[in-house]
Amino acid sequence: MRDAYADQLDSIRTDLVSMSRLVLDAVSRSTHALLEGDAATAEAVISDDTKVDQFREDIEQKAFEILSLQAPVAGDLRMVIAAMRMVSELERMGDLSVHVAKIARLRVPEIAVPTRVEPTISRMATIAAVMVGQVERIIGDRDVEAAKALEEADEEMDKLRRTSFRELLGSDWKDGVEAAVDVALLGRYYERIADHAVSIARRVVFLVTGDMPAAV
Amino acid sequence: MRDAYADQLDSIRTDLVSMSRLVLDAVSRSTHALLEGDAATAEAVISDDTKVDQFREDIEQKAFEILSLQAPVAGDLRMVIAAMRMVSELERMGDLSVHVAKIARLRVPEIAVPTRVEPTISRMATIAAVMVGQVERIIGDRDVEAAKALEEADEEMDKLRRTSFRELLGSDWKDGVEAAVDVALLGRYYERIADHAVSIARRVVFLVTGDMPAAV
Repeated sequence: MRDAYADQLDSIRTDLVSMSRLVLDAVSRSTHALLEGDAATAEAVISDDTKVDQFREDIEQKAFEILSLQAPVAGDLRMVIAAMRMVSELERMGDLSVHVAKIARLRVPEIAVPTRVEPTISRMATIAAVMVGQVERIIGDRDVEAAKALEEADEEMDKLRRTSFRELLGSDWKDGVEAAVDVALLGRYYERIADHAVSIARRVVFLVTGDMPAAV
Repeated sequence: MRDAYADQLDSIRTDLVSMSRLVLDAVSRSTHALLEGDAATAEAVISDDTKVDQFREDIEQKAFEILSLQAPVAGDLRMVIAAMRMVSELERMGDLSVHVAKIARLRVPEIAVPTRVEPTISRMATIAAVMVGQVERIIGDRDVEAAKALEEADEEMDKLRRTSFRELLGSDWKDGVEAAVDVALLGRYYERIADHAVSIARRVVFLVTGDMPAAV
């Protein structure tokens, strides 16, 4: 019985890793759709979001069953609760990728991101994807050092967001209001993906070390 | 012992109601700061967010203790899990009010919202506040009918968001890129506050009826 219980806990972790991989896929493909003006890929990201949602349901169901039937305490209980929170964060990251894909789709055959801010947005997208990839490894390997490294990536993300605002609001912005609104919202979506990644990493650090770094 | 347990469950609900009231206060005051260009109120919303965060910590701690010491099952377990999720949503609603307050503060002594979109943004803010007020009652009274009414308010919110985009992107927009970016982000923040309110309402409906309405 104890073995079946350990298997259940392991299976939640495995599912979270698989779900992270799906989210990484959504982030990467939505960025591709955005920067290439690729409508088919944008559509695929939007329709594939149901797979992310399904993972959420499955993991929540497993967590509920463990709480209900096994009444875990201490570290195991913390793990199950953290898993339930991480699954919500991962689902939101999937939703945010859908928002990116929708902006991409709205502007096809044009490209939503004007050339002059393309380097900034492209770098934000890359950092977001790297952070989600790290989340997958952090959950899978409980790698506390990698979790701490995420905070640095998040700082770069914050700097890029400020850069994008400077670019938007500079007196030499020639790309109009629509592009400015798109870029402001895209910046917000990538920033939120990064925030969720940091939050997940902090939960893992807390599970492993018992110390919660700053506010989550 | 059973009575102390029932008291613990009740106390979580009471705390959620109090936390909703704080969030309502944050939403209302951030809107006032925004529409009046009131820096002092904006500052107060930003600094008072620690109170919302403190509620989150306290409620999460209570929920953890109940799970750990009482090992609730069935309806009680669902209630504790739902409370943990609602507390995250309420905290996010507080954060979103802080974002509104920060835009207000950034533009003082000017007002971030140009006159021509003021009616739309003001209406979005009113609906958001009404929805948060309803959340307080829905949690307090487990009022399923009120929870369903929230979905209608959310539809109006979605329409207003589309209206605000039409206003921003119309050929007669004369208020510049900065104001357009502010209004786009403000629209996003109020829309997210409404989304969280709907999500909380759906959780209460699920607790009371066992039916989860659509995707949360």
